[in-house]
Amino acid sequence: MDIQKKQLDVVVVGGGLVGSLEALYLAKRGHRIRLYEFREDIRYTPQARGRSINLALSVRGRRALKDVGVETHMIEEHGIPMKARRIHRMDGSTYAIPYDARTKQCIYSVGRNYLNARLLQESENYSNVERYFKHKLVEANLRKGALTFLNTDTNETVHVTADLVIGADGAFSAVRKAMMKQPLFDYSQKYIEHGYLELCIPPDENGGFQMPANYLHIWPRGEFMMIALPNQDCSWTVTLFMPFIKFKNLDTKEKLLAFFEKYFPDSIDLIGKDKLIEDFFAGSPSPLVAIKCRPYHVEDKALLIGDAAHAVVPFYGQGMNAGFEDCTLLDQLFQKHNDNLAEILEEFSNSRWEDTFAISDLAMYNYIEMRDLVTRPSYLIRKAVDDFIFWLLPNFWVPLYNSVTFSTMPYSQCIKNREWQDRLLKKFFTFGGFAAAVGGAFALKLKYLK
Amino acid sequence: MDIQKKQLDVVVVGGGLVGSLEALYLAKRGHRIRLYEFREDIRYTPQARGRSINLALSVRGRRALKDVGVETHMIEEHGIPMKARRIHRMDGSTYAIPYDARTKQCIYSVGRNYLNARLLQESENYSNVERYFKHKLVEANLRKGALTFLNTDTNETVHVTADLVIGADGAFSAVRKAMMKQPLFDYSQKYIEHGYLELCIPPDENGGFQMPANYLHIWPRGEFMMIALPNQDCSWTVTLFMPFIKFKNLDTKEKLLAFFEKYFPDSIDLIGKDKLIEDFFAGSPSPLVAIKCRPYHVEDKALLIGDAAHAVVPFYGQGMNAGFEDCTLLDQLFQKHNDNLAEILEEFSNSRWEDTFAISDLAMYNYIEMRDLVTRPSYLIRKAVDDFIFWLLPNFWVPLYNSVTFSTMPYSQCIKNREWQDRLLKKFFTFGGFAAAVGGAFALKLKYLK
Repeated sequence: MDIQKKQLDVVVVGGGLVGSLEALYLAKRGHRIRLYEFREDIRYTPQARGRSINLALSVRGRRALKDVGVETHMIEEHGIPMKARRIHRMDGSTYAIPYDARTKQCIYSVGRNYLNARLLQESENYSNVERYFKHKLVEANLRKGALTFLNTDTNETVHVTADLVIGADGAFSAVRKAMMKQPLFDYSQKYIEHGYLELCIPPDENGGFQMPANYLHIWPRGEFMMIALPNQDCSWTVTLFMPFIKFKNLDTKEKLLAFFEKYFPDSIDLIGKDKLIEDFFAGSPSPLVAIKCRPYHVEDKALLIGDAAHAVVPFYGQGMNAGFEDCTLLDQLFQKHNDNLAEILEEFSNSRWEDTFAISDLAMYNYIEMRDLVTRPSYLIRKAVDDFIFWLLPNFWVPLYNSVTFSTMPYSQCIKNREWQDRLLKKFFTFGGFAAAVGGAFALKLKYLK
Repeated sequence: MDIQKKQLDVVVVGGGLVGSLEALYLAKRGHRIRLYEFREDIRYTPQARGRSINLALSVRGRRALKDVGVETHMIEEHGIPMKARRIHRMDGSTYAIPYDARTKQCIYSVGRNYLNARLLQESENYSNVERYFKHKLVEANLRKGALTFLNTDTNETVHVTADLVIGADGAFSAVRKAMMKQPLFDYSQKYIEHGYLELCIPPDENGGFQMPANYLHIWPRGEFMMIALPNQDCSWTVTLFMPFIKFKNLDTKEKLLAFFEKYFPDSIDLIGKDKLIEDFFAGSPSPLVAIKCRPYHVEDKALLIGDAAHAVVPFYGQGMNAGFEDCTLLDQLFQKHNDNLAEILEEFSNSRWEDTFAISDLAMYNYIEMRDLVTRPSYLIRKAVDDFIFWLLPNFWVPLYNSVTFSTMPYSQCIKNREWQDRLLKKFFTFGGFAAAVGGAFALKLKYLK
């Protein structure tokens, strides 16, 4: 930098995926970062149960990782490409629905803990980043940027003030709780009536995958579903999503096995009968919550990002990606407003909520698609039409899933996009002009190909 | 009672309108009630500013007051009937839109403080009710029915346990805050972008009303509005509802007066120019929030009612009425389930939310009606049609406002009712059959009149 700029003193609350990425972005801009995390340092901790251990990384997340220099490593060394949904029928037979038939883009299964540790490790390269673990936020005066942490190791309290407090402390954010005392703060938390429970398909006796690896496997069963994502060690994390009431009714071994034999027969041997029973009854299903709020900021002093600002249900695989995108957009605003916090925070607050509300709604909707619609002819026909026009006119017609997953189009724009596509298709089908239009487009394509 | 029943030990948190009414309902059933209120005893307090001092009492509220024996007194001695909306045009001329052209039912303007004091006083007639003022809830373990209060007079803490904790502590409920820690608790708070500010039209020099008394006066101005409700002392409480940004722009005497001269010219002399300026700049506009949550209960131990469960914006005049209706319905459930708390609380939670969500949505909508639609020909034509069919077929066709205000039809049913009326009218108008139908109905009416 040519001009000497004021170094801002930033406290990031939360050293999870989004918090540790944000620390890197700010470190690159030369600010002083103190990162406070409630848990112990994940780099030196045995894997914690109870949180989903793999995640689907797509374009928005990759862009952010690229900005801080860890994308190539994550994708090439530690990401397992998933090129299609692999649907398991009731009889155990399967078929694939590609994510991107045109350009063969993939989503990547990555380990949450590995990625988190990698981002924290990267921050060691910056002398302007300090990391504090086992520090629990117990009090916050956001207008003053004043925070009090409890060191859960020593039981000492620590008082900290900062130019900027960034709350990246997840769906049950303590920073957000302090923000709720602000007047005119809109907030909603909505639990869905379904919970989830994690099971595991281990590697085979040769240490390889028991199912074709480069897929996101889905057992869609209408009201409920099971999915499986591949792990680095050739195991699969299997997640059963189902109404709580259905979980409750499966209260004996016999009922559980009868249920699996009826709906997921091919999975029993993969998981192992004893392990299935053990894991199923080891815990209780976890709830799924969607959180919306606004504004995300308090004056020029505090800001929420990631799940703290907009926890979504997991069905679009966009929770982490949307949180990472927050960091990218915020970095662009730091650039645009030349580190003027009042302007940066206000613009982020005013412009971001519409897109996070949109991905939240899309994720709710996608549960129905994944567990039910995906098996219906109407869905498959629509997908074929979408993919065909996309192939003909890739710049003009991007299907919804592709715009969300393989582009950085604002989420709210993805929805608007789909709406005009719906209107157009309806008109074409209604007036019988569809074939003519496709023919015309095809002619156009051929002309350009010459 | 013939059979000796277990006396329940109930703590009601909040001694406002709904809490003190609920205490009476429970006292009548023979339970032990301890009523804890954060403020001092309103019966011995000079009137507090900052809260709306009069309210519109309608049929749901009246039914509840009747159940506890104070309706007649409130209506006959302390209610001022309002039989119509009186619309003030920009030029100061006015016209009336009756609430109930058919049976001339009224809504009643009652003083909040007077009604609250009256309900508290009534509870003195029951030896099983204890009242504690200046007690602030500081901690709650709802599953155990264990509460900790701070006596703000003596600074002592008081520990209390109860069979049932009822949270009637208003929109910013401390009981609800404790309930938010429960898993699967849905919650939303939504502020509208408009605020309100109270002004006053004093009595005339003879101590009489300066405007026709038996009306709710409205100055609808599209994006904003002013209303006035009559008080016992012949003054009027005037409330200006407006976008915050508009309030902010009126930052000088001159701008304020120019604004009133343009939009509310007839009100300036009524309020008094100096008083208008003084009151307008004395405080800042207050926010308006709508709160929805569910479930309302924790096991058989705790329940939210009134604004704590469902604060609504004030534009349907149903906030207090809905809270009072909670008490009535709860009393019916105590009767139905013979004081079995688990059954009572679960049924209340499962059945009540749909109606409170409905009145919340209706109240949001009604702001647009009151400040804007009410002046439009389309509104007046629809109202004329509604009133006419209502007059012909009163058991078959009850207009929306009448079902909400002058009946005890569940709020969600009021909306469904309106929906089929809309569909029917649309069909009739579309197929030109309307005249024929009205003619037929008229003939039917004449036949019955014979």
